[in-house]
Amino acid sequence: MSQIETVSEQRSFGGVQGFYKHESANCGPMRFAVYQPPQAAKERRPVLYYLAGLTCTEETATIKAGAQRLAAELGLILVMPDTSPRGTGIEGATGDWEFGEGAGFYLDATREPWAQRFRMYSYIVDELPALVAGRFPVDVRRTGIFGHSMGGHGALTIALKNPDRYRSVSAFAPIVAPSRVPWGEKALPRYLGEDRAAWADYDACELVRKRPFPGSILIDQGEADQFLEKQLKPELFEQACAEAGQQLVLRRQAGYDHSYYFISTFVDDHLRHHAAALG
Amino acid sequence: MSQIETVSEQRSFGGVQGFYKHESANCGPMRFAVYQPPQAAKERRPVLYYLAGLTCTEETATIKAGAQRLAAELGLILVMPDTSPRGTGIEGATGDWEFGEGAGFYLDATREPWAQRFRMYSYIVDELPALVAGRFPVDVRRTGIFGHSMGGHGALTIALKNPDRYRSVSAFAPIVAPSRVPWGEKALPRYLGEDRAAWADYDACELVRKRPFPGSILIDQGEADQFLEKQLKPELFEQACAEAGQQLVLRRQAGYDHSYYFISTFVDDHLRHHAAALG
Repeated sequence: MSQIETVSEQRSFGGVQGFYKHESANCGPMRFAVYQPPQAAKERRPVLYYLAGLTCTEETATIKAGAQRLAAELGLILVMPDTSPRGTGIEGATGDWEFGEGAGFYLDATREPWAQRFRMYSYIVDELPALVAGRFPVDVRRTGIFGHSMGGHGALTIALKNPDRYRSVSAFAPIVAPSRVPWGEKALPRYLGEDRAAWADYDACELVRKRPFPGSILIDQGEADQFLEKQLKPELFEQACAEAGQQLVLRRQAGYDHSYYFISTFVDDHLRHHAAALG
Repeated sequence: MSQIETVSEQRSFGGVQGFYKHESANCGPMRFAVYQPPQAAKERRPVLYYLAGLTCTEETATIKAGAQRLAAELGLILVMPDTSPRGTGIEGATGDWEFGEGAGFYLDATREPWAQRFRMYSYIVDELPALVAGRFPVDVRRTGIFGHSMGGHGALTIALKNPDRYRSVSAFAPIVAPSRVPWGEKALPRYLGEDRAAWADYDACELVRKRPFPGSILIDQGEADQFLEKQLKPELFEQACAEAGQQLVLRRQAGYDHSYYFISTFVDDHLRHHAAALG
């Protein structure tokens, strides 16, 4: 287990907002943020992972989502990781906001030169939770996961593949069918190879058909989202859930775009969704 | 009256978060942010100005303070200006975070080369409110003002000098005695000259002694604020208020620093303070 180094800790809503760094076995040097609500000073609390979208870091939601207020009230620990390895030095890993650093797609790359460091799936599912459990007062039996855009894709696919580890899942404007939209069609072949069968393991529409999640999935989607029609296509997930018998609450929010103004507006509903499932 | 140009408008908590730019007679090209709550679509609403601190812009509180949620509930219009003129080209106006651009101190400079553009007092008190009233559904009779650090100084001094225009005032970690702390002792002579009598007109401790504000002032101050002892000295304002008979609620918040994690924690209390006064 690698050492966690504290970057900063600041009082927020009676709890502690911290930033931390460590050496990941999967990804190399990584940063993440944790919000500990006041209740965490006395007892183990449920933990909710938030996966951010393309270009974002562990700071984005920490600063912009406004989740700490209600997390403090509900007693939820929030863990907000970065979206990819950083400083990889791999040619082509920077300079394109849709691929490489800042665009890890929460998968384990199998193709070089990405396979060595771009292992966000194993990082999020295995390594980070173990690290977090060793340092913060989380009740690992009560773990939920949510995310935005690429991070919504991450949350959905990770929860669908690991229903034993995640009791609740939700997403803001998720990529639900990366195998069939330009963002995925650009990233997946480079990370995973051209064989589309490998892509299915990271495609929420495919995964939900194989095994629905044992609980209702909450999704908010802005109708003024600039990526709605080309990249997000929530109707594909809606259809897959209907076919699979997956409980889904898909809310189309008139006038809202893809930004954190959208997320902050509805984050409280998501926190309550998770708190209800995590008890 | 200069034209307002819309930079962006986004849906937020059922209202609209916008960024705007215009040519200011006092300061040159300026930007500001306005949050319109849902109620503003139907009727004129109270307006609350938020003045940010050193290094900040119109974006800082818009992104970090988390004020829109409760403003939407209370029906408050929020106006968040920049902290100084920008792109002035004046030698010495950039490169020092405590002076010049990003550090306008909400005063009208009288010394060259600053006097031409660094006129934030007139901008905030006269020009911007007129501009806002011409474009947004504000009820100008119901105007409040608050701010952080240098912006807390701005809010206090502006309200104390203009009780006819501002019905309510509050501050987070304000500079209350710029005449007697390093930030002020550095900026005031350059903007206003060496005569300390001119400084008194921008010093909340001096102003409250001359004329208390007709209403209670709310101040939150973090006890772990790195600037508390050297720059902020809330005890000086506490003493001045006691001598002047000024109603003051000064809350010392254990463990909180100078950041927006502190501000976001207590912003709801400030919005409620203003909403109560603005009706």
